[in-house]
Amino acid sequence: MATPLTNPAVYLYGPGEAKIEESPYPTITDPHEVILRIAYVGVCGSDVHFWKHGGITNKVSHAQPLIMGHEASATVHSIGSSVASLKPGDRVAIEPGRPCRRCKPCKSGVYNLCTRMEFAASPPYSHGTLRKFFTMPEDFCYKLPDSMGLDEGVLVEPLAVAVHAARLADVKARQDVVVFGAGTVGLLSAAVASAMGARKVVSVDINEKRLAFAKDFAATETFFSPKGSTAESIADSIKGQNSSLEGFDTVLECTGVEMCIDAGIQVLVSGGTCIQIGLGMPKVHFPIVALSSKEITMKGCFRYGAGDYEMAMHLLESGKVNLKKLITGVKKFEEVTDAWEATARREGIKTLIKGPEE
Amino acid sequence: MATPLTNPAVYLYGPGEAKIEESPYPTITDPHEVILRIAYVGVCGSDVHFWKHGGITNKVSHAQPLIMGHEASATVHSIGSSVASLKPGDRVAIEPGRPCRRCKPCKSGVYNLCTRMEFAASPPYSHGTLRKFFTMPEDFCYKLPDSMGLDEGVLVEPLAVAVHAARLADVKARQDVVVFGAGTVGLLSAAVASAMGARKVVSVDINEKRLAFAKDFAATETFFSPKGSTAESIADSIKGQNSSLEGFDTVLECTGVEMCIDAGIQVLVSGGTCIQIGLGMPKVHFPIVALSSKEITMKGCFRYGAGDYEMAMHLLESGKVNLKKLITGVKKFEEVTDAWEATARREGIKTLIKGPEE
Amino acid sequence: MATPLTNPAVYLYGPGEAKIEESPYPTITDPHEVILRIAYVGVCGSDVHFWKHGGITNKVSHAQPLIMGHEASATVHSIGSSVASLKPGDRVAIEPGRPCRRCKPCKSGVYNLCTRMEFAASPPYSHGTLRKFFTMPEDFCYKLPDSMGLDEGVLVEPLAVAVHAARLADVKARQDVVVFGAGTVGLLSAAVASAMGARKVVSVDINEKRLAFAKDFAATETFFSPKGSTAESIADSIKGQNSSLEGFDTVLECTGVEMCIDAGIQVLVSGGTCIQIGLGMPKVHFPIVALSSKEITMKGCFRYGAGDYEMAMHLLESGKVNLKKLITGVKKFEEVTDAWEATARREGIKTLIKGPEE
Amino acid sequence: MATPLTNPAVYLYGPGEAKIEESPYPTITDPHEVILRIAYVGVCGSDVHFWKHGGITNKVSHAQPLIMGHEASATVHSIGSSVASLKPGDRVAIEPGRPCRRCKPCKSGVYNLCTRMEFAASPPYSHGTLRKFFTMPEDFCYKLPDSMGLDEGVLVEPLAVAVHAARLADVKARQDVVVFGAGTVGLLSAAVASAMGARKVVSVDINEKRLAFAKDFAATETFFSPKGSTAESIADSIKGQNSSLEGFDTVLECTGVEMCIDAGIQVLVSGGTCIQIGLGMPKVHFPIVALSSKEITMKGCFRYGAGDYEMAMHLLESGKVNLKKLITGVKKFEEVTDAWEATARREGIKTLIKGPEE
Repeated sequence: MATPLTNPAVYLYGPGEAKIEESPYPTITDPHEVILRIAYVGVCGSDVHFWKHGGITNKVSHAQPLIMGHEASATVHSIGSSVASLKPGDRVAIEPGRPCRRCKPCKSGVYNLCTRMEFAASPPYSHGTLRKFFTMPEDFCYKLPDSMGLDEGVLVEPLAVAVHAARLADVKARQDVVVFGAGTVGLLSAAVASAMGARKVVSVDINEKRLAFAKDFAATETFFSPKGSTAESIADSIKGQNSSLEGFDTVLECTGVEMCIDAGIQVLVSGGTCIQIGLGMPKVHFPIVALSSKEITMKGCFRYGAGDYEMAMHLLESGKVNLKKLITGVKKFEEVTDAWEATARREGIKTLIKGPEE
Repeated sequence: MATPLTNPAVYLYGPGEAKIEESPYPTITDPHEVILRIAYVGVCGSDVHFWKHGGITNKVSHAQPLIMGHEASATVHSIGSSVASLKPGDRVAIEPGRPCRRCKPCKSGVYNLCTRMEFAASPPYSHGTLRKFFTMPEDFCYKLPDSMGLDEGVLVEPLAVAVHAARLADVKARQDVVVFGAGTVGLLSAAVASAMGARKVVSVDINEKRLAFAKDFAATETFFSPKGSTAESIADSIKGQNSSLEGFDTVLECTGVEMCIDAGIQVLVSGGTCIQIGLGMPKVHFPIVALSSKEITMKGCFRYGAGDYEMAMHLLESGKVNLKKLITGVKKFEEVTDAWEATARREGIKTLIKGPEE
Repeated sequence: MATPLTNPAVYLYGPGEAKIEESPYPTITDPHEVILRIAYVGVCGSDVHFWKHGGITNKVSHAQPLIMGHEASATVHSIGSSVASLKPGDRVAIEPGRPCRRCKPCKSGVYNLCTRMEFAASPPYSHGTLRKFFTMPEDFCYKLPDSMGLDEGVLVEPLAVAVHAARLADVKARQDVVVFGAGTVGLLSAAVASAMGARKVVSVDINEKRLAFAKDFAATETFFSPKGSTAESIADSIKGQNSSLEGFDTVLECTGVEMCIDAGIQVLVSGGTCIQIGLGMPKVHFPIVALSSKEITMKGCFRYGAGDYEMAMHLLESGKVNLKKLITGVKKFEEVTDAWEATARREGIKTLIKGPEE
Repeated sequence: MATPLTNPAVYLYGPGEAKIEESPYPTITDPHEVILRIAYVGVCGSDVHFWKHGGITNKVSHAQPLIMGHEASATVHSIGSSVASLKPGDRVAIEPGRPCRRCKPCKSGVYNLCTRMEFAASPPYSHGTLRKFFTMPEDFCYKLPDSMGLDEGVLVEPLAVAVHAARLADVKARQDVVVFGAGTVGLLSAAVASAMGARKVVSVDINEKRLAFAKDFAATETFFSPKGSTAESIADSIKGQNSSLEGFDTVLECTGVEMCIDAGIQVLVSGGTCIQIGLGMPKVHFPIVALSSKEITMKGCFRYGAGDYEMAMHLLESGKVNLKKLITGVKKFEEVTDAWEATARREGIKTLIKGPEE
């Protein structure tokens, strides 16, 4: 080829310090890999945390800058010699992790718990998707149907988070569900719970605008939790507006906030299940005796695993979940820090960043 | 009958105030009921709590004194007209609760979560077993094999607690288990885990004598947690002495102590399970992010339910668990408060109280 | 009361021999019972079998005639002293069995497997619902919402059969399902599978009219199985018209016909599940090596149990299943044998019989 | 290296036609692979079937001869550049299949159902272990403890079959189990059921000598099924000698014989489970109505998957299962056809073949 291929990428060097620089052009090292041309990358709360603090547990540094981005859609650029499911030009959603495929979690169906996982934009292991070209194994690329845009394709990632949570909870027909938080994951969790047959889906938030969106999007009812609420008052009020129930079957906790976790346990019926999706303070005051005496099951929830992307794609293709409404802004590749700042200011719901132009 | 039957009982009137007084002689109101002559009643930590504080959430009073006792063995005195499984003279262990049999939990296999449960010595619903005669439905009486004494029969109750916990955890062959606490329930939990095939069973306590007992009784190894320990140091040390493992599969938490619960979550492998059996402070500082990022399952554990007593009886009959060693003292009916005081002073492991003599 | 209450009933004395005769007026023997005034009784295939052959395993006789009927709706006539959930005048669907509530299956959540079950119109245990008054425990009566007619209430029973099957199969979002048979239970199974989120629901029958109905009612596609088909050809054809699949996740077999059972196993993907709902010949030629080498799970399905009626009621109230279309005929109480004959001739889908007039 | 490495192998060319010939010396193509020097290879029933009939579904031919053997132990000869868990000289048991690691079954924890599995001695995909050198990925090699001989190491393979079956059945403490067949897999299934806590383990066979062995090895009781038995008579007799039970919880069917499968369903309690391990005629007469009305679960069982070899190794290391007694003969590499003929004549229990000498 006459012109050498370039691969500009967004590197984070520390809090508030990011640069677009050339990164190595990827090569296919495994015959089942594909090279992808990134179309869009979504901004999520953890990106903002990196942007503000330079990382979470592992911090980036000038010696080890990190290419950001993990929610992404792309077009297939070229394929390895054994690739059978994709061809150049295919439009795909990306599941941005590479499990080792050989350890006990990988072989027993929970590859999201692989300790050798290389996950996009997770220091120190691997760089992210905010660049022009990116490689993935073919089986972690999900072909978008013709009816779905590459912009929507970005949101398959957070949808897969919500699917994973709902599957851990085993949400089924007739279950009554409370979802704490009405940000992207909370909204999608409400939508997935509803798609899986939930009877009541109560969205809880401290932001009335988000609750109005939630009601329109998926919730059967909402609960506004004003300043000065206590866990008890939240739980009692939600139960009060649902007095026909002994309690809720399932809580999908998407905030990580102590008061919500506590209220979640209290709002459950005996034998109910709480899925902890949101991440916040490492330790919280937790109603352990209530958990015991109601025989509650509490499950942690980490990323997504076998079948989650497939289920997310199905919910989209069948029209049971619609992502289009969540996209509230699109920025150019060069405006990446504006996108992070907008998300930090909680503007809109989901902001996308376009991949680099030609 | 010439002499009217009497039914002396131990009534608690308030903290530190108990009297042996005549109680109503029971009558059979359902053809499936039996009248039992109580043989022995065990003392458990909750009895001591009642004795010291007059109750837990509901307190006894002079207006509503409570007959104490819920761990008990008995001889069948007389039977209702439809009783087929028992005859007078049969020796039995008692499962001391009466679920309603009609609600959703009762019909779906979790009668321990029945909100109308009448459980022995639970104010305000129902009186306990510390009396001469007591009635139960036949299906909550478990015939003791000839080889088992009525004294051992008392311990089927705490054994059923341990069985319930192990079944909630689904302990299986090759699992590695940590048991926090080496009191009666902790020791029995270790024994049940071992009987269900666990590979490693690590007992943890702050009392070296109890740990020595645990090692002899059921644990494959022990961990002494000295004063000034932190949750991190406990977890790291237990993992350190088991460096071939990535973490433990199962924690059976029998203390209710914050530091143990926290250490329990930390000592687990990704995807592991913690069962909360011990009851302590209503709220504890809890490592919620560790729960999420390791996708831990945490389950509350309340009493015992369908199949737990049957399993406990099997473990005893097959010799997989031996209760005899746990009985460290027997008191007369009239010495009931001595028995409570001995347990309060943590003397021995399990003290029994004899039923009233003729 | 001035006029003594009468209780006319349809007694079967043998094949082709039924009489309407006075039966004992029921009394409440348990404070949780209610006396019901029967509104409608449905005709099912087993009724026709009784009418033609005098029973299935246990046959009726002149010495032991049987009151027929087990699908029924009613109005509450009077209530026992402890009844809290119902009042006279309430309109209900009836779950027509009385489990013992004390045995291992009853206490472990599978009361449908109770060996002491007294099920309506099951000789020799208990008489059926084809009479004026009938008693039931309150917890086996399900209040109809105002929006639902007593005629629809009859169909909650077969709907609960379909719910039970789908729950045994654990039908979930994105599963691909084949339903063999497009009679009442087959149609309802297709509807429940769809309501529980199935992606494809293929109805199979030998009757093109029923398939047209199925397509309109719930199936996403249908397969007409012509005379001379083999199990292989049926399975191959269904797979052929779904070539994007490796096989189906779930089969709901509602015919009991050997060829369908065989085709069902063959049409499944490795790891798939077949639920055997239909009853036919006691033994069939069965593809056991295919079951083994694809690690298929095959489950028998017997009546309905904990939560099935509640789920059926939910599916109706939420509009996810609509029963109205299935009712194709209503006969008077006196025309009961006409109703059986019509069903024997496979006229329509579901024929109802009205309860006795005043 | 001075002397070129040779790799003699046993090729099957057709029924009764086998030759020892030079095969290609293996090379490491993936850095996680190891080259193994075969120590022993076991003879199983399927080998005999190949020897007598030239294959099962796919037949070998002169154009496509097949290297036989799939039960094997070995010593590590050399290792790939990324191998961390093994070093040359390590003694290992071999799990002789290579799943693709990328398909839905592989990623969801059931890699034994991978449709691209390359399994030893399965035409047309891959050759077997009856040769001097053989390659495997490191994670399919299981290090033998010092206490275990390489001869015993061969039997980890059939033990993993039994483990897989018992795990599919979820055999637990207090379950009552019937095992049909007392050959290698039947004996090991009885041993595993016992190790997993089964209360009763009844071995059934038509050979009294094998039953005597079974009683000594693992069964708590045996049942001799004489000529002229019917499924009903077998089931009735087994239930008769266990009259305290309503039926058995679990059947492990290791024969594939119609009468045993039928008797298996009949001997189960309502809600029980039958695992079909044995392979025989493709179709059998099967008691489908009994399956339905007792709500039996019947599961096919195919090879072994995630965690099965690990569990087998644990049962051996802990002494819960002892394989030594099963080895009843060892033949030289050159005597391979004698070994097959001995197994065809049902001599002893398990015959091993030594790998080629230097």
